[in-house]
Amino acid sequence: MKFNPLQRGKKREENTKEALYEVLDAGFVCTLSVNVDGIPMMIPTSYGRKNDCLYLHGSSKNHLFLEALKSEQICISVHHTDGLVLAQTLFNTGLNYRSAVLFGRAEKVEKEEERMEALKVITEQVIPGRWDEVEVGTPEQLNVTLILKVKIESATVKIRKGGPNENSDLNKEVWSGVIPLQTVALPPEYDNNRLQEFEEDDSITLYYLKHKFNA
Amino acid sequence: MKFNPLQRGKKREENTKEALYEVLDAGFVCTLSVNVDGIPMMIPTSYGRKNDCLYLHGSSKNHLFLEALKSEQICISVHHTDGLVLAQTLFNTGLNYRSAVLFGRAEKVEKEEERMEALKVITEQVIPGRWDEVEVGTPEQLNVTLILKVKIESATVKIRKGGPNENSDLNKEVWSGVIPLQTVALPPEYDNNRLQEFEEDDSITLYYLKHKFNA
Repeated sequence: MKFNPLQRGKKREENTKEALYEVLDAGFVCTLSVNVDGIPMMIPTSYGRKNDCLYLHGSSKNHLFLEALKSEQICISVHHTDGLVLAQTLFNTGLNYRSAVLFGRAEKVEKEEERMEALKVITEQVIPGRWDEVEVGTPEQLNVTLILKVKIESATVKIRKGGPNENSDLNKEVWSGVIPLQTVALPPEYDNNRLQEFEEDDSITLYYLKHKFNA
Repeated sequence: MKFNPLQRGKKREENTKEALYEVLDAGFVCTLSVNVDGIPMMIPTSYGRKNDCLYLHGSSKNHLFLEALKSEQICISVHHTDGLVLAQTLFNTGLNYRSAVLFGRAEKVEKEEERMEALKVITEQVIPGRWDEVEVGTPEQLNVTLILKVKIESATVKIRKGGPNENSDLNKEVWSGVIPLQTVALPPEYDNNRLQEFEEDDSITLYYLKHKFNA
């Protein structure tokens, strides 16, 4: 795996494997882009990372996934918005964020063992602990599930943190600083189709989610 | 503007102008994809919507923005993850989300009046009320700011909400339902470079943000 250096904005470049993995592991939804007859088509989709590979899954008829398999190179973007950076001018106003844009080639995962491993990786990335709690699905359901493996060939990682860059009292009348943003989990909504009697502590899933999202 | 119908998953299609605007107005960071010599390159960037146009802004040397201006068609994706849908099998496990993928052509905004309007639209999309509080920047800073206008030519809107689709007690031992996710603002972090004495109610910006992000 190699890193693509930024041409500009070097101070936001964090092109290390540690930073890349941190950005990827902090999320579970990426945006996939595939060049289809000259048009850059996109789809948001969930993912899981294992080493320097991302796994994606979808229907075996997913148009963009099938196009991805025909492409020499696809692009994947993962982005976290961490805060609003409010400066005393709009020019210096912006966002704190962690972002990774990566390139690779998509291949279809065929072997049963790796398919199961991929589904586990995706599941655990989104919902830690869930894999051990529930069944994957029926053989018929698995038959219509397409799994893509994208080995990261190159990546760019950008991170912006901290307060506004201005260093003066340009405009004393206006507040400046950072409004941190965070994704949190709200209280679980029980499935109305079922009669369930769970204490939260009984469920491994709810336990893990509470820690992951500070619910 | 026209809508691109989904080939599959019709029940998640929400191809109306109201739904499109709702999805776009609920966010302020999109992912832009541009076909550069056959490679689908991507960048996350902030945006503002006015009618059926999106405005983007960046450095006048931004590589992907300059490539976008040369492209016949660019693609923009906006995605909100609203919840984890935990079913009794992984096959039916997934996400609640609101997503818009749109196509259009990027053009450079040249006229001073529209440039100011575009910057206002972008600012107000991210930080309502901020435009009236702060200066835009110096003429030199504005000179190096490139503003793109993307008229939405076609779009696809997908929305998934509600609980898991399974309708039975397949696995009585496992909790099923939805973990709603939400982006919230944490308490403001004051700019360390300045001596500021603000009551929160004194700032229009903080007032609006509190309402927008349930801080």
